[in-house]
Amino acid sequence: MSDNSFGRLFRVTTFGESHGPAIGCVIDGCPPGLEINANEIRSELRRRATGKSRHTSQRKEKDDVQLLSGVFEGRTTGTPIAMLIENTDARPRDYTDIATKFRPGHADYTYWKKYGIRDYRGGGRSSARETTMRVAAGAVARKFLKQKLGIEIQGWLAQLGPIRTDREYDAQMIDENPFFSPDASVVPALEKHMDMLRKSGDSCGARISAVARNVPAGLGEPVYGKLDADLAAAMMGINAAKGVEIGAGFDCVDQLGTEHRDEITAEGFLGNHAGGVLGGISSGQDVRVSVAFKPASSLRIPCRSIDVQGQPVEVITKGRHDPCVGIRATPIVEAMLALVLMDHVLRQRAQNGQEWNINE
Amino acid sequence: MSDNSFGRLFRVTTFGESHGPAIGCVIDGCPPGLEINANEIRSELRRRATGKSRHTSQRKEKDDVQLLSGVFEGRTTGTPIAMLIENTDARPRDYTDIATKFRPGHADYTYWKKYGIRDYRGGGRSSARETTMRVAAGAVARKFLKQKLGIEIQGWLAQLGPIRTDREYDAQMIDENPFFSPDASVVPALEKHMDMLRKSGDSCGARISAVARNVPAGLGEPVYGKLDADLAAAMMGINAAKGVEIGAGFDCVDQLGTEHRDEITAEGFLGNHAGGVLGGISSGQDVRVSVAFKPASSLRIPCRSIDVQGQPVEVITKGRHDPCVGIRATPIVEAMLALVLMDHVLRQRAQNGQEWNINE
Amino acid sequence: MSDNSFGRLFRVTTFGESHGPAIGCVIDGCPPGLEINANEIRSELRRRATGKSRHTSQRKEKDDVQLLSGVFEGRTTGTPIAMLIENTDARPRDYTDIATKFRPGHADYTYWKKYGIRDYRGGGRSSARETTMRVAAGAVARKFLKQKLGIEIQGWLAQLGPIRTDREYDAQMIDENPFFSPDASVVPALEKHMDMLRKSGDSCGARISAVARNVPAGLGEPVYGKLDADLAAAMMGINAAKGVEIGAGFDCVDQLGTEHRDEITAEGFLGNHAGGVLGGISSGQDVRVSVAFKPASSLRIPCRSIDVQGQPVEVITKGRHDPCVGIRATPIVEAMLALVLMDHVLRQRAQNGQEWNINE
Amino acid sequence: MSDNSFGRLFRVTTFGESHGPAIGCVIDGCPPGLEINANEIRSELRRRATGKSRHTSQRKEKDDVQLLSGVFEGRTTGTPIAMLIENTDARPRDYTDIATKFRPGHADYTYWKKYGIRDYRGGGRSSARETTMRVAAGAVARKFLKQKLGIEIQGWLAQLGPIRTDREYDAQMIDENPFFSPDASVVPALEKHMDMLRKSGDSCGARISAVARNVPAGLGEPVYGKLDADLAAAMMGINAAKGVEIGAGFDCVDQLGTEHRDEITAEGFLGNHAGGVLGGISSGQDVRVSVAFKPASSLRIPCRSIDVQGQPVEVITKGRHDPCVGIRATPIVEAMLALVLMDHVLRQRAQNGQEWNINE
Repeated sequence: MSDNSFGRLFRVTTFGESHGPAIGCVIDGCPPGLEINANEIRSELRRRATGKSRHTSQRKEKDDVQLLSGVFEGRTTGTPIAMLIENTDARPRDYTDIATKFRPGHADYTYWKKYGIRDYRGGGRSSARETTMRVAAGAVARKFLKQKLGIEIQGWLAQLGPIRTDREYDAQMIDENPFFSPDASVVPALEKHMDMLRKSGDSCGARISAVARNVPAGLGEPVYGKLDADLAAAMMGINAAKGVEIGAGFDCVDQLGTEHRDEITAEGFLGNHAGGVLGGISSGQDVRVSVAFKPASSLRIPCRSIDVQGQPVEVITKGRHDPCVGIRATPIVEAMLALVLMDHVLRQRAQNGQEWNINE
Repeated sequence: MSDNSFGRLFRVTTFGESHGPAIGCVIDGCPPGLEINANEIRSELRRRATGKSRHTSQRKEKDDVQLLSGVFEGRTTGTPIAMLIENTDARPRDYTDIATKFRPGHADYTYWKKYGIRDYRGGGRSSARETTMRVAAGAVARKFLKQKLGIEIQGWLAQLGPIRTDREYDAQMIDENPFFSPDASVVPALEKHMDMLRKSGDSCGARISAVARNVPAGLGEPVYGKLDADLAAAMMGINAAKGVEIGAGFDCVDQLGTEHRDEITAEGFLGNHAGGVLGGISSGQDVRVSVAFKPASSLRIPCRSIDVQGQPVEVITKGRHDPCVGIRATPIVEAMLALVLMDHVLRQRAQNGQEWNINE
Repeated sequence: MSDNSFGRLFRVTTFGESHGPAIGCVIDGCPPGLEINANEIRSELRRRATGKSRHTSQRKEKDDVQLLSGVFEGRTTGTPIAMLIENTDARPRDYTDIATKFRPGHADYTYWKKYGIRDYRGGGRSSARETTMRVAAGAVARKFLKQKLGIEIQGWLAQLGPIRTDREYDAQMIDENPFFSPDASVVPALEKHMDMLRKSGDSCGARISAVARNVPAGLGEPVYGKLDADLAAAMMGINAAKGVEIGAGFDCVDQLGTEHRDEITAEGFLGNHAGGVLGGISSGQDVRVSVAFKPASSLRIPCRSIDVQGQPVEVITKGRHDPCVGIRATPIVEAMLALVLMDHVLRQRAQNGQEWNINE
Repeated sequence: MSDNSFGRLFRVTTFGESHGPAIGCVIDGCPPGLEINANEIRSELRRRATGKSRHTSQRKEKDDVQLLSGVFEGRTTGTPIAMLIENTDARPRDYTDIATKFRPGHADYTYWKKYGIRDYRGGGRSSARETTMRVAAGAVARKFLKQKLGIEIQGWLAQLGPIRTDREYDAQMIDENPFFSPDASVVPALEKHMDMLRKSGDSCGARISAVARNVPAGLGEPVYGKLDADLAAAMMGINAAKGVEIGAGFDCVDQLGTEHRDEITAEGFLGNHAGGVLGGISSGQDVRVSVAFKPASSLRIPCRSIDVQGQPVEVITKGRHDPCVGIRATPIVEAMLALVLMDHVLRQRAQNGQEWNINE
């Protein structure tokens, strides 16, 4: 039961391998009448593109997305929206060396154990290339959420290796540096750290945070489709993710109840340790999520591994890789946040539709 | 779209309110031929029961589960297994005071915003009482996993408020103290801390960890049904959860790639920072998960809130509550871990069945 | 993957065996705020009850349904609605004779081949007893459809064996005879035919038709959740069903295009060969469906069969059975029609909610 | 909730409009290791292609399917298989005349009522062009079913208008005439009838039958995923279908129980009125299904209709259409039969995998 669809009612199915002919997605369930065009999607894709600075992979994909269906005269029709991107800068030959070896920390070993066969070229289906289509589909969701409900989504780099990057938060700044850091003052330190890693051939982890503002109260389907549970799945399902927090996250372990509970006044909540979710349902406060990304495992520094026969081998990863995969994860976290919210808007409308005015 | 079913192929649907006539569940998709009886389930339920020590809620439920269907002459038949527990120690009158007030940190406000109506008695559907049925369903999954695949699942209290409780790990110890602590030496400190909270009327958070051993490689359905993503949803969906980690979790942010990647030798992996999951698929290593639970919000210490008219009110929570909900979360975390693994065993078998010998 | 849930958004899960302790269902996704009580459901159940006339099974079940959850102070809360009926007139001993034999025309053989185990008492899960819960869940759907959208559903016996029973159609008549015949003049012939079958120990087939009036245009989800496709599944999934027609059904094979197409004028459609569905979406006309039910296979007339060892045996069915299962199928067809429409109302609202006024 | 995916575990999602840039599909859940190439799929597509004889639409599509993912070195990898066909002989201008008019008997009116917008070019999403991808996906399923389980699927034209075409059944014959008739002797009559219709501008209905041989016992998931229920949905969901029968179908209404029940001997069943399905589960006998297709509504003969303002208009359909859509439905019925069986093979394997040897 391969499972390549995300969402229940705003349902995104992705396909494609890193170095195959193309990647693509199908969005099923998009409300009709939404104005959308390929350029809007391309503009979101550029935010996660490789090759924009020396700090990310040098693969240069045009990501020239085509809209194949579901849009007529500039508006969605309610039928499936298919999007396709041809892979133009694939270099499958970079990978012949690892055709029979398993790269530690990669999905090579587990795909092979699961399916008994794997497309080893660039990680095949397990490559972060797949996340391109999450951003593409997320762009449609964001447009709807923004236009119909006024929801705004923003992600940022909260930490890179040992460097905490959001002590100062300046939203304007985020898209003006290659790290999605909201704190201009740490950018030189980040550049230095990344240059150091590139030289040593090593990599580092990162923490990405995101917020959704103007989310109406009432989103989330207890008790097994809670908003926070769906966010956790969405974030943990991004390549390299190892941890997810909502609101206070793991800090709540050390908190007292009197400290954590967000008191309410006629003017609103007095805090947001909850991260905008109570009992699995949005409270109308900002929805806040934080995700840990592990350091990339594709390193030039050799390591011990085995081959498909179980024999010991040494592995060195060539190809073009990100020393910190977390950096480009920012737009992906935003996209997944948008997809979860979009799905829950439709789910909420299904059960509580008539009585519930989404714009109030 | 209320969403009260968990799992795709081993599908558990729960129902029931905290102070309604009964709670129950239906398991759909259980393989036939599994020996199971009500006593085995009752024995699991006793581990999460309230009223066992002075440190948890004093509600005393017999949790006398009945098997209504799906089991014939002691074995599962492949048809839906229904289980029912009558609520015997419900005290709905404890809650009339909060019928029109919202308790901060609770689902009162969000259920009311979502549905426009709520069963206020003891939290109704949002009560942790619902998790009883997760443990009941989990007992069936655990039996199958143990018997057919040799999978062993163990959870423990890793931290309670400021007290780290798993510096020493002794599995034997876990069920021998009321905290599920694997470290006998901290139990006195835990008791003291809990007594202090009970006196002050405050509460504290906790971190629960769990491991599944002997999990075969190959479980997990990329790219949107990954094992770690499903675990994240399962754990974040437990009442009061605010964070989930797989393997190294948030510690990976500070790690270098050379440190995090688990090298492989002919004898096996040299580490398990991955927590047993690579690319969303189990690697055959121990699956490791950690969950943060917030401090309970039902406190005797008054706080500010509003009522259904939006008017300011003071709220004091009566009723019988846990000062640290995390303690009793241990068997729930184990149950959710079992349910996720069970579902993935069936999902893996669906697509890769014939070629894949689950016992190898 | 046992599959005991029906519907996507108004989702009904049933459980229970014919001669087990109880049968029940859980409705997940019901909109909140609907007034409903157990007596309304009991009144629907009486229409399909056995033992009402000499022409149906003499099993006497009180069908005393209990509402266990999801209803608070007389209104639905949006959480799962659980209903339970205890089996009181079970006689499992009637079935020991067939514990190791397969009754031709029954599910005995196929359940055994599928699961390797079966609850042979009264057909276990394959018994029409399960349809009680379809009627119970259908009662909730009908209430909503009637109250919120004005939809009216009516089924009737269109043919019984060789006797066409709807040449004259008088809706008033339908509930006034034990056959659900809309034509009073054929009732004596029906009685005579049924008496003959009871004497001979044989059985006969039936055709049940149903109509839903005031269905809004727009229900149905192309191209794999079409309204007619979902109706076909719903009807063919009823015990003993062998054929389903929408509108003209198989008569369309002989029609010309000029005859079949329903022309449209400013006043509306000039015909309804389509049965209210075009391109899988409701047109606003009456939705019309017809279902063929096979003659019951539980006969006192002996027949050839085999036992679990594959040895030839003679089978005679004792127990209390319907000589024409089609008769009591009328309220079941109505219930399934209601469940499909209810689900599609919610599905339509999910995608097209805001712009689409369900009452226009 | 647009619903463009078919199947639970072998899940096919289609996209694309009749006169848009391309149509395509994604198969998710295909077992790995199956040898498949684009030419095998093309060869199935040629069977349903238009423009092969004067009796079907003259649109000439090359249907040059591309495999975009999920196949590596000639074998499936277990990841999503994407297929794409560019529309090359689209003539959207043929349809400007009906941009604001509703063709009676078409989905024009209902799509507009549902979505408030429609791609009117050639029926857009509601066009039979979509079924191309059902045949493409079905080709993969058929390959697996044939190779791994020995299942053979064959469909044929059973009736065309008033002409019953399967009184003589010669499987060899079916692909040797443009009607999929198994009876060579009626072909001249069919040609004459079709020529007559083409001259008059009218159309006729058809009945298509199909059989699957060597289906193992045990497929089908009671009580809401029964094999016959899923077949009914699959067939009724094909464009223009109005009725579905399993086995004896509507003939069972007139049968006696002693006539209908298929007795069993040590050598097997003595009849197959059941059509290979008992209690919703395959019995090991041939699975038999029959489908009624209405006469096409796109006629040169004018008819009354309305436009989007509700004003009366006359409609004449230009474009290139099939006078009997049922003819080309034969490979589509086969494809849907293959998709249902394939899905159920995986579903059965999920729950009953280990104990159940699919080849026995």
